[in-house]
Amino acid sequence: LSKCDVVFSCKKGGDTFPFIVEVLSGSAKFIDLSGDYRLKCPETFEQWYGIKHEHPGLLKEAVYGLPEWYRARIREGRLVANPGCYTTTTILACAPIIAAGFGVASPVLIDAISGVSGAGRVAKAENLYISVAENVRAYRVGNHQHTPEIEQELTAIAEVGRKRAKIKGAAQPIRTLFVPHVGPYKVGILASCYLRLDETFPVPTDDDLYEILRTVYLNEPFVRVYQPGALPQVESVVGTNYCDIAAKCDPRTGTIVIISATDNLVKGAAGQAVQNMNIMFGFEETAGLTGRL
Amino acid sequence: LSKCDVVFSCKKGGDTFPFIVEVLSGSAKFIDLSGDYRLKCPETFEQWYGIKHEHPGLLKEAVYGLPEWYRARIREGRLVANPGCYTTTTILACAPIIAAGFGVASPVLIDAISGVSGAGRVAKAENLYISVAENVRAYRVGNHQHTPEIEQELTAIAEVGRKRAKIKGAAQPIRTLFVPHVGPYKVGILASCYLRLDETFPVPTDDDLYEILRTVYLNEPFVRVYQPGALPQVESVVGTNYCDIAAKCDPRTGTIVIISATDNLVKGAAGQAVQNMNIMFGFEETAGLTGRL
Amino acid sequence: LSKCDVVFSCKKGGDTFPFIVEVLSGSAKFIDLSGDYRLKCPETFEQWYGIKHEHPGLLKEAVYGLPEWYRARIREGRLVANPGCYTTTTILACAPIIAAGFGVASPVLIDAISGVSGAGRVAKAENLYISVAENVRAYRVGNHQHTPEIEQELTAIAEVGRKRAKIKGAAQPIRTLFVPHVGPYKVGILASCYLRLDETFPVPTDDDLYEILRTVYLNEPFVRVYQPGALPQVESVVGTNYCDIAAKCDPRTGTIVIISATDNLVKGAAGQAVQNMNIMFGFEETAGLTGRL
Amino acid sequence: LSKCDVVFSCKKGGDTFPFIVEVLSGSAKFIDLSGDYRLKCPETFEQWYGIKHEHPGLLKEAVYGLPEWYRARIREGRLVANPGCYTTTTILACAPIIAAGFGVASPVLIDAISGVSGAGRVAKAENLYISVAENVRAYRVGNHQHTPEIEQELTAIAEVGRKRAKIKGAAQPIRTLFVPHVGPYKVGILASCYLRLDETFPVPTDDDLYEILRTVYLNEPFVRVYQPGALPQVESVVGTNYCDIAAKCDPRTGTIVIISATDNLVKGAAGQAVQNMNIMFGFEETAGLTGRL
Repeated sequence: LSKCDVVFSCKKGGDTFPFIVEVLSGSAKFIDLSGDYRLKCPETFEQWYGIKHEHPGLLKEAVYGLPEWYRARIREGRLVANPGCYTTTTILACAPIIAAGFGVASPVLIDAISGVSGAGRVAKAENLYISVAENVRAYRVGNHQHTPEIEQELTAIAEVGRKRAKIKGAAQPIRTLFVPHVGPYKVGILASCYLRLDETFPVPTDDDLYEILRTVYLNEPFVRVYQPGALPQVESVVGTNYCDIAAKCDPRTGTIVIISATDNLVKGAAGQAVQNMNIMFGFEETAGLTGRL
Repeated sequence: LSKCDVVFSCKKGGDTFPFIVEVLSGSAKFIDLSGDYRLKCPETFEQWYGIKHEHPGLLKEAVYGLPEWYRARIREGRLVANPGCYTTTTILACAPIIAAGFGVASPVLIDAISGVSGAGRVAKAENLYISVAENVRAYRVGNHQHTPEIEQELTAIAEVGRKRAKIKGAAQPIRTLFVPHVGPYKVGILASCYLRLDETFPVPTDDDLYEILRTVYLNEPFVRVYQPGALPQVESVVGTNYCDIAAKCDPRTGTIVIISATDNLVKGAAGQAVQNMNIMFGFEETAGLTGRL
Repeated sequence: LSKCDVVFSCKKGGDTFPFIVEVLSGSAKFIDLSGDYRLKCPETFEQWYGIKHEHPGLLKEAVYGLPEWYRARIREGRLVANPGCYTTTTILACAPIIAAGFGVASPVLIDAISGVSGAGRVAKAENLYISVAENVRAYRVGNHQHTPEIEQELTAIAEVGRKRAKIKGAAQPIRTLFVPHVGPYKVGILASCYLRLDETFPVPTDDDLYEILRTVYLNEPFVRVYQPGALPQVESVVGTNYCDIAAKCDPRTGTIVIISATDNLVKGAAGQAVQNMNIMFGFEETAGLTGRL
Repeated sequence: LSKCDVVFSCKKGGDTFPFIVEVLSGSAKFIDLSGDYRLKCPETFEQWYGIKHEHPGLLKEAVYGLPEWYRARIREGRLVANPGCYTTTTILACAPIIAAGFGVASPVLIDAISGVSGAGRVAKAENLYISVAENVRAYRVGNHQHTPEIEQELTAIAEVGRKRAKIKGAAQPIRTLFVPHVGPYKVGILASCYLRLDETFPVPTDDDLYEILRTVYLNEPFVRVYQPGALPQVESVVGTNYCDIAAKCDPRTGTIVIISATDNLVKGAAGQAVQNMNIMFGFEETAGLTGRL
């Protein structure tokens, strides 16, 4: 490993703990695709992953590898924690609205569905064709391990929003209720994100929301914002590194609905890891990520 | 028609308006499977269905055909409005919790997915195999016509709950944000219903929720309540008249999640119509509705 | 087991060899769903199943459990070998034409496709949703273990045909080339059977073929013969004990094509076992086998 | 059109008849994706397509656009008839064996299955998700319009084989019985081709067949020959311009089975049309046809 420029790792459950320090002591950069370096707080890690983190210093150092929000830090980082698939899909959707500084009341509710490839290639009964086809099921209701990752990032972004809006005092952490489902298809996530408006703020129009999203992602090569009325579908992003996003306000209930879609194996995993590598090494950011993958 | 005992109608968009009065003037009973007689308020009907209702008196008279909540009235009714598929799935899920009288804050959020048979057999491009397979999409976000039906029924049931809990004053109407999706399968609805707890009430446990649901549906032949930890799946109800329900509380966010499943063509349509007929005519309520349909 | 009336067994690979003799020494009848008692010839068994048969006498005694052709023997049998799924589908299709006594030249070619439930519920990588969906593959080309079973039965039936037609001399055995496929669906077999006509016989019309099939299966509760021009589909038989059959002659190539369909788990396995039990015990033959299973 | 270099046409049913002569009178080359210029014999065209051909001279002139067999002529051609999807899949599979000059007895039997995209995007009831999913059906048994195209090409190639083997006298035309199926998936054809050996020739081994195929397609960029024991699957070719082929001999029945797979929309249609254009204009033959399409 001493001669590597970059190490991609899919090991999880702390399996990198025994050797990561040594790897990072050389010149290699490390892109980790597991959840082991995504959370900043060691206690939160232990609570959600059930093991004690052996390198809390690395948790602090690791850069959260979501290029649209942390590109500058990724460029300088030597340890990049590649975000989870659900997390990428939902943070890219919610962050611009939350950062815009008008009031979103905690909790944020996220109802998402993934194709069965999210469970990997493990030969388990629940992933058989006869279990998956013509079926839908929810799982890990409220206790999926991507929950604290979403909360950490949305809270950080809300702080940004408060500063922009010159709101004083510390922000309350944003709580998230995340309910994932598995659907009868191979690849792709469709997330429906529900942001309840604080009643003291005026209700935005769909055009307002579109402008906020469009402005934030104007120069992003892998985010496509839909005009009011249009909605992302899974098939639009399959085999691509895109995240497609549409937002809509429901004034009747004071709720913003944001629908987003990604390919969980590309923008939700390997594609984003390549995008991070491209940034870290000064390559063209889209290199290897165009066309149908 | 004068010699019929019962008329089942699937006509919609007011197509029964020209003749329903005459039919009801005879001895025939009328079970309507469209949305034309489900709403009590003519203005709400006009707002959501886009046509003026020609028989507002029948709106008042029509019995909402959800046996688990209106069995006695169905027995006496001559015009039964068979509930919508999404509506059946979500009202059966939410009603016991709301009726229990502890505080559910409006709005109720419902995120549901249906197999493509929900769109009927119409040969439209969006229902082709090549459009549906390996895809998921949301549609009619916040403006699906089942929304006012859910609101009407949940509000009525909340009133029951307030009376039980001896809370004075009129209940506020329960607003619903309903976001339906279409998934790549033929039959079945999985609804994820989110009830936010009023902060002034204590947070229930999963066991509390189970007891509430179990007690309400104890003698119901077509509702199955799942024990804490278990979750309904679409495949468990396909081809049956069952509605399967599980509830779970997320104390972190003060939210109750209720997952329910039905076959949209059976309990969500024709099966429930037969169940209503059985009640109206004094037949065994489960007649014709057992086994795989 | 001594007090059982009937034993259904799904053990295979000779796993019943240690105890079957003892079971049969009592009064219990035995319905075996494996391939262990279907072949008459011990050498053929050893050749295709790779193990030596320990009870060649039982091979002789066992009745081949295809009611449409062996009902009388099943009624008297104490050991019934329930046919394989592909075998049932193809023998029911080809047997009437072969028995009709006009010349079918060996080999018979059978190209069939099965849903993935044919592979059971074993959690193998090849049966995962991600392996099966949007894919088709052939397997065991020419060496599937149902091949000798089809050959044995078609040869026996050809002998019947020769006798009817008063053709002298022993029949040549009918060779079969059987090529199974797995398709991206759960349940059901569609078999396309190709019978090449001996050039010395006149070419039949589609009506001739229909009459032959219709006459043979006239009183059969579980065989449906399609009129010329119509073709069976998998979905017509799913969840039923039916075998649907259509025949068509292609005079250009002197070939008869017979398309047949069954549910591999019902008429191809458990349903036929129940049908055999009904016959063996004098129950109504269709008991437990009507409606959608 | 006068300034075009090349015209791709998907019009069918003779819709190009009114203008094709004028187009060809200029400098434009014409690549036709319909069946209107594939058959050499006007009578055969009329018999299978049900209309009289208005330009029998163009039938003679048109080059059959299967690069692996007619590359030199395609390079010089001004009118290229792009082969059908089933035809490409089966001719590429059978031609090397037939051309090898050992005896294949007519008829050749072809049993193939296609994803539903073969039927186009037309919103017909039979192409709806609810009609296609969890179903398989045969159609146009023995009378699909690709039949004469397969016969024409295999007969021409058999002639080549006879010459190589220095067999005197004219070859008998090769008859084909072609039975297509539709399966529950979007894209791809799996063809199982059955060649019966003339009994006067020695039976080849699987290695013999592999060598024949490998040698013929050694330098072909878009044909992959599988080693004995391996079998093509639909998913291996989806989104590519490849045709995957494996051959196996069944000595028990004197039959060669060749399994081949293509993406019906790529090598079976648009991809092959691009390949033909590349040849016609001296471009790199694989230009635009690599990666996942």
